[in-house]
Amino acid sequence: MTTLADCRALDAQDPLGPLRELFALPAGVIYLDGNSLGPLPKHAGERIARAVKEEWGEGLIRSWNSAGWFDLPQRVGDRIATLIGARAGEVVATDSTSINLFKVLSAALSIVRADAPARRSVISERSNFPTDLYIAQALCRERGFELQLIEAEQIPGALGNDTAVLMLTHVNYRTGAMHDMAAVTRAAHAAGALVVWDLAHSAGAVEVDLHAAQADFAVGCGYKYLNGGPGAPAFVWVHPRHAERFWQPLAGWWGHAAPFAFSSDYSPAAGIARYLCGTQPVLSMIALDCGLDTVLVAQPLGGMAALRRKSLALTDLFIALVEQHCAGHGLGLATPREHALRGSQVCLTRGEGAHAIVQALIARGVIGDFRAGPPDILRFGFTPLYMRFEDVWHAVQHLREVLESGEWRRAEFSRQQAVT
Amino acid sequence: MTTLADCRALDAQDPLGPLRELFALPAGVIYLDGNSLGPLPKHAGERIARAVKEEWGEGLIRSWNSAGWFDLPQRVGDRIATLIGARAGEVVATDSTSINLFKVLSAALSIVRADAPARRSVISERSNFPTDLYIAQALCRERGFELQLIEAEQIPGALGNDTAVLMLTHVNYRTGAMHDMAAVTRAAHAAGALVVWDLAHSAGAVEVDLHAAQADFAVGCGYKYLNGGPGAPAFVWVHPRHAERFWQPLAGWWGHAAPFAFSSDYSPAAGIARYLCGTQPVLSMIALDCGLDTVLVAQPLGGMAALRRKSLALTDLFIALVEQHCAGHGLGLATPREHALRGSQVCLTRGEGAHAIVQALIARGVIGDFRAGPPDILRFGFTPLYMRFEDVWHAVQHLREVLESGEWRRAEFSRQQAVT
Repeated sequence: MTTLADCRALDAQDPLGPLRELFALPAGVIYLDGNSLGPLPKHAGERIARAVKEEWGEGLIRSWNSAGWFDLPQRVGDRIATLIGARAGEVVATDSTSINLFKVLSAALSIVRADAPARRSVISERSNFPTDLYIAQALCRERGFELQLIEAEQIPGALGNDTAVLMLTHVNYRTGAMHDMAAVTRAAHAAGALVVWDLAHSAGAVEVDLHAAQADFAVGCGYKYLNGGPGAPAFVWVHPRHAERFWQPLAGWWGHAAPFAFSSDYSPAAGIARYLCGTQPVLSMIALDCGLDTVLVAQPLGGMAALRRKSLALTDLFIALVEQHCAGHGLGLATPREHALRGSQVCLTRGEGAHAIVQALIARGVIGDFRAGPPDILRFGFTPLYMRFEDVWHAVQHLREVLESGEWRRAEFSRQQAVT
Repeated sequence: MTTLADCRALDAQDPLGPLRELFALPAGVIYLDGNSLGPLPKHAGERIARAVKEEWGEGLIRSWNSAGWFDLPQRVGDRIATLIGARAGEVVATDSTSINLFKVLSAALSIVRADAPARRSVISERSNFPTDLYIAQALCRERGFELQLIEAEQIPGALGNDTAVLMLTHVNYRTGAMHDMAAVTRAAHAAGALVVWDLAHSAGAVEVDLHAAQADFAVGCGYKYLNGGPGAPAFVWVHPRHAERFWQPLAGWWGHAAPFAFSSDYSPAAGIARYLCGTQPVLSMIALDCGLDTVLVAQPLGGMAALRRKSLALTDLFIALVEQHCAGHGLGLATPREHALRGSQVCLTRGEGAHAIVQALIARGVIGDFRAGPPDILRFGFTPLYMRFEDVWHAVQHLREVLESGEWRRAEFSRQQAVT
């Protein structure tokens, strides 16, 4: 049986413990939703204020050069590259995950159209994040491909002569289940298909090595584990073997070989820069840069490997404590126990009242989130940069108290009253 | 002959004069580049700091509801609507101008494919802003249309049975020449074509009435005359008669009828909301909202009509003073003299040294910009919210001194040295 003292001992020994000080976490909050929106890095306020006052206010248009706004997508992209097994010059931070997915999927479909025109199927998981499916649906409709939605365990059997692209999110947003990126990519390649990975719940959360996996395309999110702030720009990576094969259709001036030549003819830039389109939101991009500071400060402390070790220790502890303290309350575990199959979150199922339980926890300052089912899910994200083992203990005690006291039933009742 | 005293008298009588106080303009700068990047509204720093510290830092994920982040695209869009002759619920602020153009042009091409499949030509101006042409080029290639680039005066003759879409920027970025939106739209409709307007240099600068013109689609920029900050989100409008006819292919979850149902099937939202795609950069969107405050504060003072009157007075004065003080220095006028054909900028041509002259002016604190030709252009934007008639006088005196002293030749020499 793990005790509070054990948790405190784990915190005392944790080499990553001091990194919590990088964040402005509100008092009385245990934040288990960094997988939706990472918290505010303490230094971001001052950095953004400087960008507003000095760079925008004083520098005005000159700051595109003097403050380095022009190459922010590349500079921020290079920093993200170090977290996902990509190389400098291969990643740009830009636009939203949905839009970047549109770019890479349309490039992938163009490659298939050229190299293997008989392949007509795009495979994804039925439980993939919906925006990925919507973008795929729209592109398939436009280009004459068929979108095939299956369960994760059906993927190996579904890959075949007809498969054009396998498009997956590495860590599932609902369950926290993680694919073996290298093995899945190998299987898809063996079947002659290209693979697009969405790293929304992976970048900054788990170890990713895109080159080792020989992945083809990847996109990801800036505002979750990269702590980039609300709606921070996303990122896009293309393996160099594909980067220059085709245009992507969002062929705006920032992806032009010479944007300031103002030529009327599009000529795509070399490499990943052709995945840029229009002018980027500089203030939000600077916030993302601050978020990356918090992740990269862990590099000398062991980097993503050290963060991953602590993440697994946190999620192991949460699962163990829930089973120890909340047994008999109808909770199930949606997240795989096996480390190799688990991202950085733990998802619990419950037949009744999951939404109200999450609301009751939030009222107590324990912020996770609810995902409607079936099965309904209580989702808890664990970010090793600022999460303490002691926080895990207290979060579980709150959960136990909410379940034992029945206060969630009152929350559920109020909600029904409000809706009626 | 206009004198400095005349200019000061104009400022003293100017009912919009006090609005200059809304902006944090650096001392010693005459800012004639608000058509590239509008200046910082004084209140934006505090508002953005609050969004960072309280909304992101304290509110965390809860701020999507409690701070109203979710409907920022619609709320900001509704405010933009009042400046362009659109109605509430018809505009969203989102993504970049290039990406929004992709959305509306692809919707327009889908409509043509359904209603008039024989029409294959997209017409635009050769001197349109390049990113518009690149997006059109990519979409035409993908959809089997032909992009036809012509001069402005050739448009009436070019519209015909084969024309699918006429895609124009209302005010030309290089010359400041403005189309008659109503007349051009009428001519295009008479030929059976749809019209897409880019309002990048119009919104907040000149009077626009999209409904009166019966326009079909419009996009525009947040960081120019709307003072939304570097890379502020852009906006998109679709006439209600077209809004729900088709999906646009950037069909992300924010454009879904029920984004939080997390359905695996795309079902587009009603109206303009289907032109949203992914999560928006909240900090940059809040800066845009502050920028709009500065334009909307002019509403009780006469709104866009009053801003337009002052804008024309400023550009008239600049043209007159340049002709009065800088004659004999080889400057030409690229911007139409006729009010109905002029946006809110004045562009001068010069056979030699235009870049160096702009650099020499910037060194003196007179910030305009250079656009390479032929003909090379010195571009000066006039924003009536903060520009004084006296500023126009001093800007022209600086231009005269730069030309007379030959200091631009030294700037040109340094540049050549630096490049070599």
